[in-house]
Amino acid sequence: MLHNITHVRGFTCWGSHMGIKSKRRDLALIFSETPASAAAVFTQNIVCAEPIKLSREHIKGGIAQAFVINSGNANACTGVEGWKGAVKMAETTAKELKIPKESVIVASTGIIGEPFPTDKVLKGIKESVKKLSNREMAGSLTANAILTTDTFAKEGFTSFKVDGIDINMGGIAKGSGMIHPNMGTMLGFIVCDISISPKLLDEALREAVDKSFNMITVDGDTSTNDMVAIMCNGLAGNEKIDEKDANYDLFLSNLESLCTHLAKLIISDGEGSTKLVEYRVKGAANSLDARQVVRTISNSNLVKTAIFGSDPNWGRIIAAAGRSGVNFDPEKINLFMGVDINKMTQVLKEGQPIADIRGKLKKTMQSSTIIILVDLCEGEFEAVGWGSDFSYEYVRINAEYTT
Amino acid sequence: MLHNITHVRGFTCWGSHMGIKSKRRDLALIFSETPASAAAVFTQNIVCAEPIKLSREHIKGGIAQAFVINSGNANACTGVEGWKGAVKMAETTAKELKIPKESVIVASTGIIGEPFPTDKVLKGIKESVKKLSNREMAGSLTANAILTTDTFAKEGFTSFKVDGIDINMGGIAKGSGMIHPNMGTMLGFIVCDISISPKLLDEALREAVDKSFNMITVDGDTSTNDMVAIMCNGLAGNEKIDEKDANYDLFLSNLESLCTHLAKLIISDGEGSTKLVEYRVKGAANSLDARQVVRTISNSNLVKTAIFGSDPNWGRIIAAAGRSGVNFDPEKINLFMGVDINKMTQVLKEGQPIADIRGKLKKTMQSSTIIILVDLCEGEFEAVGWGSDFSYEYVRINAEYTT
Repeated sequence: MLHNITHVRGFTCWGSHMGIKSKRRDLALIFSETPASAAAVFTQNIVCAEPIKLSREHIKGGIAQAFVINSGNANACTGVEGWKGAVKMAETTAKELKIPKESVIVASTGIIGEPFPTDKVLKGIKESVKKLSNREMAGSLTANAILTTDTFAKEGFTSFKVDGIDINMGGIAKGSGMIHPNMGTMLGFIVCDISISPKLLDEALREAVDKSFNMITVDGDTSTNDMVAIMCNGLAGNEKIDEKDANYDLFLSNLESLCTHLAKLIISDGEGSTKLVEYRVKGAANSLDARQVVRTISNSNLVKTAIFGSDPNWGRIIAAAGRSGVNFDPEKINLFMGVDINKMTQVLKEGQPIADIRGKLKKTMQSSTIIILVDLCEGEFEAVGWGSDFSYEYVRINAEYTT
Repeated sequence: MLHNITHVRGFTCWGSHMGIKSKRRDLALIFSETPASAAAVFTQNIVCAEPIKLSREHIKGGIAQAFVINSGNANACTGVEGWKGAVKMAETTAKELKIPKESVIVASTGIIGEPFPTDKVLKGIKESVKKLSNREMAGSLTANAILTTDTFAKEGFTSFKVDGIDINMGGIAKGSGMIHPNMGTMLGFIVCDISISPKLLDEALREAVDKSFNMITVDGDTSTNDMVAIMCNGLAGNEKIDEKDANYDLFLSNLESLCTHLAKLIISDGEGSTKLVEYRVKGAANSLDARQVVRTISNSNLVKTAIFGSDPNWGRIIAAAGRSGVNFDPEKINLFMGVDINKMTQVLKEGQPIADIRGKLKKTMQSSTIIILVDLCEGEFEAVGWGSDFSYEYVRINAEYTT
């Protein structure tokens, strides 16, 4: 049995077709019966969509009861009319659900700069409210309704015990292009029945997103619409988590796992992606350096085309590390490539190339999952991230997107 | 008649086939009969090739007499043997030409991490020294011998008068992938018969490169081997330029023109490139901001694939500007697109989209040269840069490079 967001106490949802997209569902609604602690992170792009501006305001109180998301139109660079549309999305959802409008978190994804079809969206909201359900299928419809160029819906579920009480956590995500998150990311919506204070929830979400969604890249373009949001309605009945104790750590660890699961699904469905690559950097002088090297390598077009072509052109990996802005000694660096972290092939040892490994590397490169490990030998810090390769299909998808 | 580097007094050159590449010429030599004022800029990638390390030392004296360049092997990540190879390149060139080894500037381009074929290179040097010539054809052979995935040789020539004396300046360049220069750039070699002090030559070269080679991008990957070098042997007989007077300005302006010409040739030959795009940013709060926005937009995969697909998806341009790290008010921004700078179509006015321009934009996007102009309305500074689009062919070239 698939577990999804419908297996979390007190949450209902629906995904309907309102007609921005020709056939696929394009409006998603997730509702908590009771007011929930809530947190969200948003894109750092200073050109941000209207729903981002509105949701930034609404999340400030730390309480939410509904996520409403349309796909097919990003409501970005849409001017005054776009802003009015986002406000009406929240107002209509609030009115239909009989909750305060500040409890509605709004998100959009799709093409930038097209007029926002407010009327269609409002109609979709009214229809979805009537159909809200906790049947498993409703969760899948919801996950489908937030997609754009994605080829499959991304769902996740986990459960764990806090003081003997079962806690359920489910999430959905979308995103297969314009993926190079910075703080917030594409779209991710998580619901949980744990009881936790809004302040700690906010901290936990930021930490989990930083190690998951923020460590993936498809094409290096940070979207105007990135958002990850979470609601925790407390219906599990645990004693409220309001300090960083063992229960908080347990929650954080489960949240990070769920976010990583969703993030890796996004990469697997990256536009034109044929391979999933895990990038590991260790021996960095600090955590920021480790992350920066991971992100520069994973975002290199030359690295990604080599991976697509199963070409063991490892010099491109080192060249990308060298232009990352991070200071290290090229004469100390070790580089490994492989499919299994316990059986990696060493390519560079203290900056010197290892002879006669081309055949072995060629075989590694043909795998659909590849691990690349760079040891900077400058300190004790490490980071891990995930990326896709770069195929003809990526070009096709993005050359034809609006036309 | 084509004018090239052979039309500069006192310079001879040759390009020979030494066998790193299967058929094409792969060793280039440019020689000045007399010691010349010289300057060079190099890649900022901290993983840099062995010839870069050596040439950085040799240029310190401000005097050079020979450029020697091999293609087909980058001599980067090649360890101790690679360093010895670079040193031998300089020593052999110096010995054959009877000049100090410090007067030899060495460069390499090609695949990273393959053992450096020192013996072949030395053989090629000896052969080239014997054939040095000032026949026009020799200039073209030289320009051809530095190419890798380039599809045509890049040559330029200009002449101007200083105090009534004819000054000749010629240059060659290469580079069609791993093009996102940072300070130095791909390979560019310029020779001139003007008399100028090494100190002023260095300043002029840095300024000219910053406005030309450093403002182009093909794929966002800064190479380990980038270099632009110049020799001025003074054989024109003008009074030596040793202050920033009108003659210096004239020299600088011609140098900048030649560098821009070569840089645009590189973009036209960018891997898989089908279009040349000029990116203009004005109204920036400072010069750095203007350059940063140009470079972020021109390097966006989503912008480049849209241009390849003739897709007027202008939201991607604004989204890229927004993630550039430069602070501006999205509500003030103006965006224009067109083919002729005097007949641009306005797309965004003070952050608001202009209605009904899609048909016009669609036509613009089908042109082989496109201008994109962003007015940030934050200040008085501007920048201009050039980029290619992003095609299936880019992916093919880079997926198959070493295999």
